Amino acid sequence: MSEGFTAIPFTAAGLLLVLDLTGSFVFALSGALVAVRRGLDLFGVLVLSFAAASAGGILRDLLIGAVPPAAISQPRYVAVACLAGLLVFYRHQMIERFRNPVQISDAAGLALFAVSGAQKALGAGLEPAMAALLGMLSGIGGGIARDVLVAQIPAVLRADLYAVAALAGAGVVVAGDLAGLPAGPSMLAGAALCFGLRVMAIRYGWHLPVPRQPDARSDRDDGPPQ
Amino acid sequence: MSEGFTAIPFTAAGLLLVLDLTGSFVFALSGALVAVRRGLDLFGVLVLSFAAASAGGILRDLLIGAVPPAAISQPRYVAVACLAGLLVFYRHQMIERFRNPVQISDAAGLALFAVSGAQKALGAGLEPAMAALLGMLSGIGGGIARDVLVAQIPAVLRADLYAVAALAGAGVVVAGDLAGLPAGPSMLAGAALCFGLRVMAIRYGWHLPVPRQPDARSDRDDGPPQ
Amino acid sequence: MSEGFTAIPFTAAGLLLVLDLTGSFVFALSGALVAVRRGLDLFGVLVLSFAAASAGGILRDLLIGAVPPAAISQPRYVAVACLAGLLVFYRHQMIERFRNPVQISDAAGLALFAVSGAQKALGAGLEPAMAALLGMLSGIGGGIARDVLVAQIPAVLRADLYAVAALAGAGVVVAGDLAGLPAGPSMLAGAALCFGLRVMAIRYGWHLPVPRQPDARSDRDDGPPQ
Repeated sequence: MSEGFTAIPFTAAGLLLVLDLTGSFVFALSGALVAVRRGLDLFGVLVLSFAAASAGGILRDLLIGAVPPAAISQPRYVAVACLAGLLVFYRHQMIERFRNPVQISDAAGLALFAVSGAQKALGAGLEPAMAALLGMLSGIGGGIARDVLVAQIPAVLRADLYAVAALAGAGVVVAGDLAGLPAGPSMLAGAALCFGLRVMAIRYGWHLPVPRQPDARSDRDDGPPQ
Repeated sequence: MSEGFTAIPFTAAGLLLVLDLTGSFVFALSGALVAVRRGLDLFGVLVLSFAAASAGGILRDLLIGAVPPAAISQPRYVAVACLAGLLVFYRHQMIERFRNPVQISDAAGLALFAVSGAQKALGAGLEPAMAALLGMLSGIGGGIARDVLVAQIPAVLRADLYAVAALAGAGVVVAGDLAGLPAGPSMLAGAALCFGLRVMAIRYGWHLPVPRQPDARSDRDDGPPQ
Repeated sequence: MSEGFTAIPFTAAGLLLVLDLTGSFVFALSGALVAVRRGLDLFGVLVLSFAAASAGGILRDLLIGAVPPAAISQPRYVAVACLAGLLVFYRHQMIERFRNPVQISDAAGLALFAVSGAQKALGAGLEPAMAALLGMLSGIGGGIARDVLVAQIPAVLRADLYAVAALAGAGVVVAGDLAGLPAGPSMLAGAALCFGLRVMAIRYGWHLPVPRQPDARSDRDDGPPQ
C-alpha cells in the first residue's frame, strides 16, 4: 500500500488489510442503498458503492502523497465494492429489511476506517492532531462523496453523532502513538471507542447541537452569503 | 505531459495529444451547454467548459501521481475549453439546434478520452483492471464534475449506456497491452468500439437496468441510509 | 509550506503566512454562515468553515504536487477555521448584522488568497498563465467547495464580479514575475487591484453577462445535455 506501511510491523499491516476490506464492503452497501433509493441505474449503483467505500481513503492518500492510492493500485477494493453493489442491486429489499444490522455494520466500518486511517497518516509523518483528523476523514469521506454525487447535503454534516465517534477513535490511535504504545492495542481500543460511541448514538438518539434559527426560510437562491 | 509518455513511441504521443485536444473541445461544449441552461454567468460557463473537458483527466493524473496534471501544466487545454465556452455563450441557440452532431461529437470525445486515459494509466504502471477503470474515469469524470457543479445527479449515473462504452474501449487498450500488441492499433480499435457502442446506445435507446422501486417517494430528507 | 518557498526571501514567506491565516479566518466565517443558514449541526458548521477556508489552497497544492498541503500539514489552519466556526455558531446573529464588514473582509480574503496562490504556483514552476489561474482557484475554490457541500450551485459561477477580481490580482503577480520585479510589491499591487475591483463590484452591482435564455424552464431532470 503506502510507504507508511514499511514502518509498521507485519501483523498490524495484515490487520489493516482485513479491516480495510471489511469496512469497504459495509460502506459500499450504504452507497448502493442510497443509489437504489435515488433511482440510479446499475452503473450508478456500482459507482456509489465504490465512492462510499473508497473516497475517504483515496482523499486521505492524495493528501499524504501516497499515490496511487491503495484503492486504485489494487483491484481488490473495486471488487469488494462491486460485490456489495450487486448484492444491493438485486436484493435491496432484503437488505433494507435489516436496518439495524446494517447500522451496526456501518458503525464497525466507521471504526475500522478511522483507526486505520489515523495509523496511515501517522506513518506518513503527519502532525498528531492532523493525523487524527485524517483518520476521521478516512471514516466519513466516503459518505460525503456518496451524498454529493446524488446532490444531497451529506448526512454526516447535519445529523447524528457520527464524525465525533470517528474522531474519538482516531484520537486514541494518535494518543497511543504519542505515548509510545504499540500500534495494535491502540487501534483496537480506538475502534472499540468509536464503535461504542456510534452504537450508543444510534440507540439513544445522541446528536450534536444545531444553531437556533431566527428565520426558517430556505435561502437556496439567496446568492453568496457575505 | 506525464512521465508515462517517455515510454510511448513518438507517434502514439502525438496521436494522444490530438485526441486530447479534440475530446477537450467537444466535452467543453457539453459543459457550456449545461451552464447556459442553468443560467450561469460568463465565468460560470467557462468554468463548466473547463471542468467538463478536463476534470476526468485531472483526477486520473492526480490518482497516478502525474502532477502537475497535463491540463494544468499546459495552457492549451484551458484555451480550447474557453474557445468552446465562448462559442456556446454567444451562439448557444445555434449549437442547441444541432443536437445530433453534438451527441455524435460527444461520443467521439468519450472514445478518445477513454483510450488515451487507459494508455496513460498503463504507462504509469497500474494494474490492467485498474488501468481500464481509470480510462473509463478519464472519459466520464468531466461529465460528473460538470453535473456536481450545478447540483444535479450526474447524468452518467442514471441514464444511458455511457460509462460501459468507455469501459469497453479502455478494456480493448488494456487487453492489447497484455497481448503485447503495439499501442496505436489497440487504441484505434478501442476508440472505434466505444464510439460504436455509444452511437448505437443513442440510436436504439440502450440503457442499463434500473432497480425496481418498491416505493417511489423521494427520500431527499430521510437522513443517512443505515 | 511548499518547496516553492525556499526560493522566496524570508519576508515574503512571512507575509504569505499572515495573509494566509487572515484570509482563512474570513473565508471560514463565510462557510460557517452558509452552514448555519442551511441548518447543519456543529460538526457541519466546522467542516464548512474549514472547507471554505482551505479547499482552494488544498486543491492548488494537490495540483502542483505540494503534498501534504499546507492546510493539512500544519494544525494552524484547522485551528483558525474552528475559531471562526465556533464564533458563528454561537454568535451568528451578531455576525449576520454586520453584512457589510463581512463582505469587505471577504474581499480582503479573496485578494490575499489570489496573490499568495499565484506566488506559490510560480514557485512550483508553472506556466505564467496557469499560475494566474491557480491563484484565482486558490481564491475561489473554498467558496465552490462550501456550496457543493450544501448541494447548491456555487455562487461564484452565477453572480457578481468575484472570480475576475481574483484573476486580475493573480495576473498582476504573474506579470510582475515575468517583468523580473520583486515578489513583495507585485503581491501588494495585485492584492490592492483585486480588493478594489471586488469592493467596486459590491458597491455598484457589477456582474458578468448572463446568456439570454430562450426558455426559462428548469431542466433539472432533462438528462444529459447532448
